[in-house]
Amino acid sequence: MSFRSERDTFGELQVPADRYWGAQTQRSLQNFDIGGPSQRLPPPLIKAFGVVKKAASIANISYGMDPKIGEAIQKAADDVISGKLMDHFPLVVFQTGSGTQSNMNVNEVISNRAIELLGGELGSKKPVHPNDHVNMSQSSNDTFPTAMHVAAVTEITHSLIPALTELRDALNEKAESFSGIIKIGRTHLQDATPLTLGQEFSGYAHQINNGIARVKDVLPRLSLLAQGGTAVGTGLNTMKGFDVKIAAEISKITGLKFQTAPNKFEALASHDALVEAHGALNVIACSLMKIANDIRFLASGPRCGFGELSLPENEPGSSIMPGKVNPTQCEAVTMVAAQVMGNQTAVSIAGASGHFELNVFKPVIIMNVLQSIRLLSDASRSFTKNCVVGIQANEKRINHLLNESLMLATILNSHLGYDNVAKCAKKAHKEGKTLKEATVSLGFLTPEEFDEKVRPELMLYPDNI
Amino acid sequence: MSFRSERDTFGELQVPADRYWGAQTQRSLQNFDIGGPSQRLPPPLIKAFGVVKKAASIANISYGMDPKIGEAIQKAADDVISGKLMDHFPLVVFQTGSGTQSNMNVNEVISNRAIELLGGELGSKKPVHPNDHVNMSQSSNDTFPTAMHVAAVTEITHSLIPALTELRDALNEKAESFSGIIKIGRTHLQDATPLTLGQEFSGYAHQINNGIARVKDVLPRLSLLAQGGTAVGTGLNTMKGFDVKIAAEISKITGLKFQTAPNKFEALASHDALVEAHGALNVIACSLMKIANDIRFLASGPRCGFGELSLPENEPGSSIMPGKVNPTQCEAVTMVAAQVMGNQTAVSIAGASGHFELNVFKPVIIMNVLQSIRLLSDASRSFTKNCVVGIQANEKRINHLLNESLMLATILNSHLGYDNVAKCAKKAHKEGKTLKEATVSLGFLTPEEFDEKVRPELMLYPDNI
Amino acid sequence: MSFRSERDTFGELQVPADRYWGAQTQRSLQNFDIGGPSQRLPPPLIKAFGVVKKAASIANISYGMDPKIGEAIQKAADDVISGKLMDHFPLVVFQTGSGTQSNMNVNEVISNRAIELLGGELGSKKPVHPNDHVNMSQSSNDTFPTAMHVAAVTEITHSLIPALTELRDALNEKAESFSGIIKIGRTHLQDATPLTLGQEFSGYAHQINNGIARVKDVLPRLSLLAQGGTAVGTGLNTMKGFDVKIAAEISKITGLKFQTAPNKFEALASHDALVEAHGALNVIACSLMKIANDIRFLASGPRCGFGELSLPENEPGSSIMPGKVNPTQCEAVTMVAAQVMGNQTAVSIAGASGHFELNVFKPVIIMNVLQSIRLLSDASRSFTKNCVVGIQANEKRINHLLNESLMLATILNSHLGYDNVAKCAKKAHKEGKTLKEATVSLGFLTPEEFDEKVRPELMLYPDNI
Amino acid sequence: MSFRSERDTFGELQVPADRYWGAQTQRSLQNFDIGGPSQRLPPPLIKAFGVVKKAASIANISYGMDPKIGEAIQKAADDVISGKLMDHFPLVVFQTGSGTQSNMNVNEVISNRAIELLGGELGSKKPVHPNDHVNMSQSSNDTFPTAMHVAAVTEITHSLIPALTELRDALNEKAESFSGIIKIGRTHLQDATPLTLGQEFSGYAHQINNGIARVKDVLPRLSLLAQGGTAVGTGLNTMKGFDVKIAAEISKITGLKFQTAPNKFEALASHDALVEAHGALNVIACSLMKIANDIRFLASGPRCGFGELSLPENEPGSSIMPGKVNPTQCEAVTMVAAQVMGNQTAVSIAGASGHFELNVFKPVIIMNVLQSIRLLSDASRSFTKNCVVGIQANEKRINHLLNESLMLATILNSHLGYDNVAKCAKKAHKEGKTLKEATVSLGFLTPEEFDEKVRPELMLYPDNI
Repeated sequence: MSFRSERDTFGELQVPADRYWGAQTQRSLQNFDIGGPSQRLPPPLIKAFGVVKKAASIANISYGMDPKIGEAIQKAADDVISGKLMDHFPLVVFQTGSGTQSNMNVNEVISNRAIELLGGELGSKKPVHPNDHVNMSQSSNDTFPTAMHVAAVTEITHSLIPALTELRDALNEKAESFSGIIKIGRTHLQDATPLTLGQEFSGYAHQINNGIARVKDVLPRLSLLAQGGTAVGTGLNTMKGFDVKIAAEISKITGLKFQTAPNKFEALASHDALVEAHGALNVIACSLMKIANDIRFLASGPRCGFGELSLPENEPGSSIMPGKVNPTQCEAVTMVAAQVMGNQTAVSIAGASGHFELNVFKPVIIMNVLQSIRLLSDASRSFTKNCVVGIQANEKRINHLLNESLMLATILNSHLGYDNVAKCAKKAHKEGKTLKEATVSLGFLTPEEFDEKVRPELMLYPDNI
Repeated sequence: MSFRSERDTFGELQVPADRYWGAQTQRSLQNFDIGGPSQRLPPPLIKAFGVVKKAASIANISYGMDPKIGEAIQKAADDVISGKLMDHFPLVVFQTGSGTQSNMNVNEVISNRAIELLGGELGSKKPVHPNDHVNMSQSSNDTFPTAMHVAAVTEITHSLIPALTELRDALNEKAESFSGIIKIGRTHLQDATPLTLGQEFSGYAHQINNGIARVKDVLPRLSLLAQGGTAVGTGLNTMKGFDVKIAAEISKITGLKFQTAPNKFEALASHDALVEAHGALNVIACSLMKIANDIRFLASGPRCGFGELSLPENEPGSSIMPGKVNPTQCEAVTMVAAQVMGNQTAVSIAGASGHFELNVFKPVIIMNVLQSIRLLSDASRSFTKNCVVGIQANEKRINHLLNESLMLATILNSHLGYDNVAKCAKKAHKEGKTLKEATVSLGFLTPEEFDEKVRPELMLYPDNI
Repeated sequence: MSFRSERDTFGELQVPADRYWGAQTQRSLQNFDIGGPSQRLPPPLIKAFGVVKKAASIANISYGMDPKIGEAIQKAADDVISGKLMDHFPLVVFQTGSGTQSNMNVNEVISNRAIELLGGELGSKKPVHPNDHVNMSQSSNDTFPTAMHVAAVTEITHSLIPALTELRDALNEKAESFSGIIKIGRTHLQDATPLTLGQEFSGYAHQINNGIARVKDVLPRLSLLAQGGTAVGTGLNTMKGFDVKIAAEISKITGLKFQTAPNKFEALASHDALVEAHGALNVIACSLMKIANDIRFLASGPRCGFGELSLPENEPGSSIMPGKVNPTQCEAVTMVAAQVMGNQTAVSIAGASGHFELNVFKPVIIMNVLQSIRLLSDASRSFTKNCVVGIQANEKRINHLLNESLMLATILNSHLGYDNVAKCAKKAHKEGKTLKEATVSLGFLTPEEFDEKVRPELMLYPDNI
Repeated sequence: MSFRSERDTFGELQVPADRYWGAQTQRSLQNFDIGGPSQRLPPPLIKAFGVVKKAASIANISYGMDPKIGEAIQKAADDVISGKLMDHFPLVVFQTGSGTQSNMNVNEVISNRAIELLGGELGSKKPVHPNDHVNMSQSSNDTFPTAMHVAAVTEITHSLIPALTELRDALNEKAESFSGIIKIGRTHLQDATPLTLGQEFSGYAHQINNGIARVKDVLPRLSLLAQGGTAVGTGLNTMKGFDVKIAAEISKITGLKFQTAPNKFEALASHDALVEAHGALNVIACSLMKIANDIRFLASGPRCGFGELSLPENEPGSSIMPGKVNPTQCEAVTMVAAQVMGNQTAVSIAGASGHFELNVFKPVIIMNVLQSIRLLSDASRSFTKNCVVGIQANEKRINHLLNESLMLATILNSHLGYDNVAKCAKKAHKEGKTLKEATVSLGFLTPEEFDEKVRPELMLYPDNI
């Protein structure tokens, strides 16, 4: 492995020759040996940083930066945005809480890549300086939170919402195709009055539909950018109007609507908008936990459980038991839900812990937010494709249980009076008979009368009056 | 203590003669001896139940209920709404998870009170029956979640939003009155470039302002009511249109805008809307934690801390130390924040744990939501009145620290170049001198030049160009 | 209502004539109007404070305090310990974070009660002064954490451990009485190889047994007392040996083993021992969640669920459905579990948030710890008495499911080879037949051979070799 | 890229030719595209699986397995234990909740590697079959939880405890070297009576010392192994004594003490021992949060904060401000603490969510536990090395603040009486004078008398009597 020298105000350091990063990145690598590669800052944040640096360079040219330098920065930033330089961002979450070293990592990589594009020497800081040019008019304290918001909005928009939409649509399709299947309802886990399997699935679809609305509703505050606040929120060392301009450029580059934050002090010192956004993710986790639990219970069996649904068989459940289909997709989804609910606690604590002009839990906040978005997105897609679309109703079993149930007695109250109906139901329960057998044997109704009156399809809606 | 007999389908029970409750309430009291009186369901939920029962009776009359009975129910419900029957609701949170027994508690109290109003005998269930009349067209499974939403929306609207508004206004007033006080900024707890004390407080005010917006934003989904879904969401045993009508009546009674939930299956089986609402409360807790921490640190001292603020002295801090003012209001606020952040976990777990047609963690969910609303409201009001309005800036100290700081050197970079400025700052730091002394003694500037150039008031905004 | 005057260093205040509290309590009541009566500090803490004050007075006499005064303090403290003065402790959790005002509340009440016993005038502070005598050699900063530990150890010992022991014993009894009932096992909610119902319950009993061991294991660190550290941990204003002496006296009064903390700085500034203790409570909550969930699922039905267990019917489940027994005790238990898991988050945040020489989240920490202890104790007792002891196995149903299962095929692998067994099981699954029918019809075994080989009772243990 | 065919009961699949994994691993990779490589199961778990498989093979030989096959398995397992096959374990956490596919991944890799060692053909399953030989007498349901415990105990023993020990020792060294430095104490963030800087650090050291004790205390229950329970806890398909034997072999291989779990039903269906263990990790997180917060506040400044400590300068804090040392190690530590506190919520939810004979949140539980152990270990080591050992006391500043403080007045109470001392302190506070100046100017003491009596070194311990 070969090395080259890079330097910062603390002195010279050896960095791997095939990496664009510089001295500050290298120093951070050595000082924060915490968690290993799996704890690196997530790629969407790095890409968002590329967007910020590109937009800054465009704005800086309009304020007088040499366009030759500016354009080289933009080209280098494009390589960050495309993800092809991802191996040049080795820093972990657990570093300085402002993410300064990751901001410098971006500055160093872009500067060296731009130098290379312009034919200069890596590490020379000429003609593109990481601080003076790439970081111009910026501070870690405003770029990092800007990149946080850009990354979160981008991932919600391009990953989570489409994944949830697929899931909602798949659930809605099931709701429609199951709309004619009447089944026993269950409250307190106990047999209750009937509903259709379609109605049951419509509740799931509605939860996810609300989930989509919830994340959309947090976007407005999440789309406000700290950029322009510089070190403490005052905007010292930047120019009037820079904040508005860079938000406009970021919007152009991403095709998403961003605006400058109306109060930069709040935007640096708190991350309430991300805590709020994670609150919406947390609700989605709760919804998924409920839905996946229901589906795996309804599919429990095949012989000794509820057995109302069959799930697609995706892998061997056991080497000895044919017919043992484990609800593995549901299990992955519920584990994701548990993780996201844990991340909610982490994000809340970190979000509450800012001091004075800066919250220094930035990396751990954005890591958790992006992880939750990714896990919810991936799990929703996997669940849709590998489970939901293939769910089948076991109509025979559903119908058998429906007719077993004593709950259908409810509809006889108006005909026979509560006390008589109670007698029928109790007799059936005690003697292990069907409701029909009990009712007929007690002489309240003939079999024909029973069949005419006790019709579950009349129990699915409010009465017409 | 004297007793009377009440009965339910399980048999007869003795209840205190001076209480309106009946057999099912009494049975629950005996079966759920968990937590004692401090764990009773909170009063706003009981009052909301009064609203629901009153609205139901109005709707039921329009569907044919005897108006004499209906009006007696409404009068009795008014007594529940006003809070004057609060001693008749002894049941705790940790009961059946559908809150069935609390629904019956309301039915029994209203029925007995209505019987009394009509001259009947308590416990006779005549002429007003708790089930047949007070609970008509309803199920615990739809009344309880309806009362949950009515209570939460009411408390947010009438308690939390006004309390937060007071706090925001008080913080804004401070921001304005402190707008001329320039102070040292702090990032990473370290001295940084200056800002005004007013700017710092504007960040706090902005957090609370966003908090108000956040809770307002959850109201639309929180204002959707489960009523009309009855036992499993199908609306069996209620009438077409009843759901819309009762939502309209509840809106009239409360003066708040409620609508019937578009999907009753979701509304009974999940409590996503309350998990979402608590997510907003959780953000407010995070904001308050940050603000109260900042204020108590800025007021730390009086001699050996930051000492920039003086807080009102509300009680003896110590019997031996004059001048020891403890930031007790900040302490109460931060303890409230910790509690609300814990409640977030409880609400999320409970919200994720529904099964099939019913979530049976209803009482614990609403208890936590209402507790968080109450604590945030009370704490905000207490904090505003007993702390924020009385905060004073220690301008002498603030100014002293500002001038002590080496950070003002930043502005000299463009005049002297970074390296020379660094020399000045390092000399000052090493020798414990002021920046001015160091700069002058190194011969870079005269004292007059220094005073002309190093002016913090030029460091508060972006540059004009 | 009549009043008397009380005064502190801030001046005079009117307090209710029939209350023993003084000016500082009254002032706190007015300054911290947060949460209302349900947020008062819990009685076990107040009683523990009585213990601390009594022990302090005994120790102080040995260091020279006038025994006449000391003995009056002890008598008054006994009234606090017995609980009969509970109405004289009106302060809420959300006050100063050191609990200073509650320490003063105790000092004031004991002083006034002692004055009364000695024939003096309430509010005169003579001959028993709240600070000089009742609080002698103490500071809020060491008495409050001492009372926290005394209260937690007492409640764990006298409430939680006995309640868990009852529950464990009841589960063990069930395990024994169900030891002959073979049932289908379930993994991933899917049918698996068999076990006995007794084995299943033995797992529950073992969880609770471990829970008892877990709380016992936290007692040693929880039994270390801060008393003697006074204001900052140095012990200023107390006497050498006072800390050891008071721990010994507290042990004598309570009959429990307490020792002085080896490092008073840690004991005032952190509450790690209480965070640790709550960690054990949190595990118990997780255990109870699992057990109560299992039991209610196994009892689901009566016709359309697993239906293996019948739970005691404690209250009407529904006015229309006979046989609908809701698992309400399980529901209360799982709601308690959710609350305790939320309290874990609150306690952790509060415990992590101390600064310098003092953690000022003391009241909210102890409130959550004591609430969790109380809820777990009460819920365990209620669950044992109203559910566990009355659980009955539906042997017919259990046996039916066992024989339905295709899983018993597992045991034929060694006789017929995996492939042939698979054929039998698949045929049975596809055609809805029993395993026996399929195996016989494929000609692999005669009915007699099948019955001889496929015996679930051989599948309950490891093989003998 | 070249491929080879592998097959399972679902059919044939192409796997990368240079990987040892087989069809079931490949299938899982395709079915669970959730989270990407950063969500792979952590290496310590994979290594623990190697240990389990090696031990199983030793035990199986003693029960009759062909030693040639068994020894090849052991050699292959050694390659898993050493970590050199880590690239052959691509599966993520969010898969089936029993970890079945990861158990199969291990079986497949070991089988293919053993086949290779014996000169066979990869994918042929001959002569070493992944199920029949590598998984002999085992089930995923007992191997996965066994590997969880082995991994957790190993990492706690070899990583966490040494890291915490280093930190404790470093803090203790500081406590000793700072034992002569008297400083002002702070309670409620306000000036209080003095203590030594050494006493303050002794509190931190004591917290970490307790942390070590806490994790040691959870080892006994964590060292109980599920192995031998097979599918549902009964031990079907294993041999009497196998469970004890394999625990003994695992102990030998790891050099750590493991025992077979006394109740296998509990060991498969719950993960209480891991929830308990994480509770101890959570306390350590709380301790670290407190300590790191204190240290960064004590080091705040350099001019405008507390300024009592200087932290090592590890990287450029800012390109413009000399002397700005950011407490970056403290920031990394507090972010780790927030993450671990979030993981506590995730682990608790997952631990509470088992059903019947199996908890199917195993991968997410062990991932969080191992992540918390790793982060706490790495952060403790980084904090020790890059911060704690280099902390320096700013004695001049500490002494200045001490003498500024009005709190020293406390000691004059016995000489001058409280009222007179109060006058001195109030005058000093109001006029901005020192206590000495005020006392002398009021004529209570001569300067010499003041210096003789007001000696902070007398305020550090209880009085001798």
